Amino acid sequence: MTTPTRYPIMAIGGAEDKVGKLTILTAFFESAGGQQATIGIVPCASQEPSVVGARYYKIFTELGAQNVQVLDIRSPRECDENRWLELLDGCTGVFLSGGDQVRLFDFINNSTFMAAIMRRLHLGTLVVAGTSAGAAVMGEKMISGGSSGESPNRSLVDLMDGLGIIPELLVDQHFHNRNRMARLLSAIAAYPDKLGIGIDEDTCAAFRGDGTFEVIGKGAVTIIDPGGLTHTNHRLSDVTSPLSLHDLQVHVLSAGDRYNYKSRSICASVIEMTPSL
Amino acid sequence: MTTPTRYPIMAIGGAEDKVGKLTILTAFFESAGGQQATIGIVPCASQEPSVVGARYYKIFTELGAQNVQVLDIRSPRECDENRWLELLDGCTGVFLSGGDQVRLFDFINNSTFMAAIMRRLHLGTLVVAGTSAGAAVMGEKMISGGSSGESPNRSLVDLMDGLGIIPELLVDQHFHNRNRMARLLSAIAAYPDKLGIGIDEDTCAAFRGDGTFEVIGKGAVTIIDPGGLTHTNHRLSDVTSPLSLHDLQVHVLSAGDRYNYKSRSICASVIEMTPSL
Repeated sequence: MTTPTRYPIMAIGGAEDKVGKLTILTAFFESAGGQQATIGIVPCASQEPSVVGARYYKIFTELGAQNVQVLDIRSPRECDENRWLELLDGCTGVFLSGGDQVRLFDFINNSTFMAAIMRRLHLGTLVVAGTSAGAAVMGEKMISGGSSGESPNRSLVDLMDGLGIIPELLVDQHFHNRNRMARLLSAIAAYPDKLGIGIDEDTCAAFRGDGTFEVIGKGAVTIIDPGGLTHTNHRLSDVTSPLSLHDLQVHVLSAGDRYNYKSRSICASVIEMTPSL
Repeated sequence: MTTPTRYPIMAIGGAEDKVGKLTILTAFFESAGGQQATIGIVPCASQEPSVVGARYYKIFTELGAQNVQVLDIRSPRECDENRWLELLDGCTGVFLSGGDQVRLFDFINNSTFMAAIMRRLHLGTLVVAGTSAGAAVMGEKMISGGSSGESPNRSLVDLMDGLGIIPELLVDQHFHNRNRMARLLSAIAAYPDKLGIGIDEDTCAAFRGDGTFEVIGKGAVTIIDPGGLTHTNHRLSDVTSPLSLHDLQVHVLSAGDRYNYKSRSICASVIEMTPSL
């Protein structure tokens, strides 16, 4: 028996497996404490919070969680009510559902609720996972919308503030599934101080809390590192003009790969590090 | 009056402007000699060669070309007939239409016709442009098909030999328009000795013959340079498993940008080099 790896923050690219091996959801459940976990589901990104909440409630209960709560916050104002803050206090894991990242941001940004999450993360007493919209909000800046099928250009992406759970990142999700490379490139042209991270469906960037993350799940995590950017025409270009971005470093990472987003470098892969191989 | 720049080879990402400013087609026309040009249209990638041939015939004639020929070769066997070789002999510019790159390859690969094109290119007495399928064939290896909307994986791209006009390149076209980043990444994982070049619609990589190309047109040319690749799981992965590609260099280039594919480096942009700016 090995102790399961603990991932304080998990950014999931949406559409994670809910009926098969549940690799990602199980990793979250174990990170939050397994059978001893108290899991709080925050479905407020969704327009159907009770449906979404009930679905994850069933999943985590079936995985063996003894305590699962749906924090079905129905308005930004409601967010800081004591009943939610008290429930949050008891949680060892918080799961942010999919839906609309702008809605999620409007509900919990700048709230006592959000401050409590950040405090608990810093103390190391909480695990936070977010899928789709719940992953999109993780950076200091976030992609609130956009499209595909065009050359990278400023009009291809809508950008606003995010919750700043991992400020350095600019997260996109459903990444290769919805062909979002051009949109993430366009976002990085606007914020070349950030690290672009495109997470595929049923795929998770599982952060260890030491500046590294591992890839879990079915697809890829694509890193766009503009640290060595030598030129972009972003400021000078019209809103629909094609963007130039010179000297990007890009990594396509899949299950077992590990990356340090602080030093912006690949770590030895998890598989290579296993002594028995 | 300045002498127009001559581009011996032009790789066009498909759907080039045929009714507006005709920036790319005009650059080809001027490269081939302008009014003194003899232009040969090779429509054999298309299943409708007479329609396609007639359309480009009209365009080049209206641009002012005195001599335009449609080399409407109807079978691979027909390719080496003297009538086509003689027409080719008189051409200063050859335009390879869009259609199916496999069909184009099957028609002219390993033919006297193709050998004549290569000889004339080496002599510097011919300009060759290809759009869409006509651009796809330019590398030693080519993408014959594939799809999008998935993590990069081996099944996402079909690869075969190309005509090798610029052997170092692995060309994809309609690039961001058809969301082909994941497919080109998958192709590069298979041939990491090649340089990936994804050309958007109405966009051209215009090669000067000195190892450099300039970007002309509306969109972007995306370079995937695996020269510094430190790891890929391509050989070990199942056909549908997500690929890892560590330490790629990527450039998004737009009009005015110039790149040296021999040294794999960005050149000073054309705009910056203009003394008046």
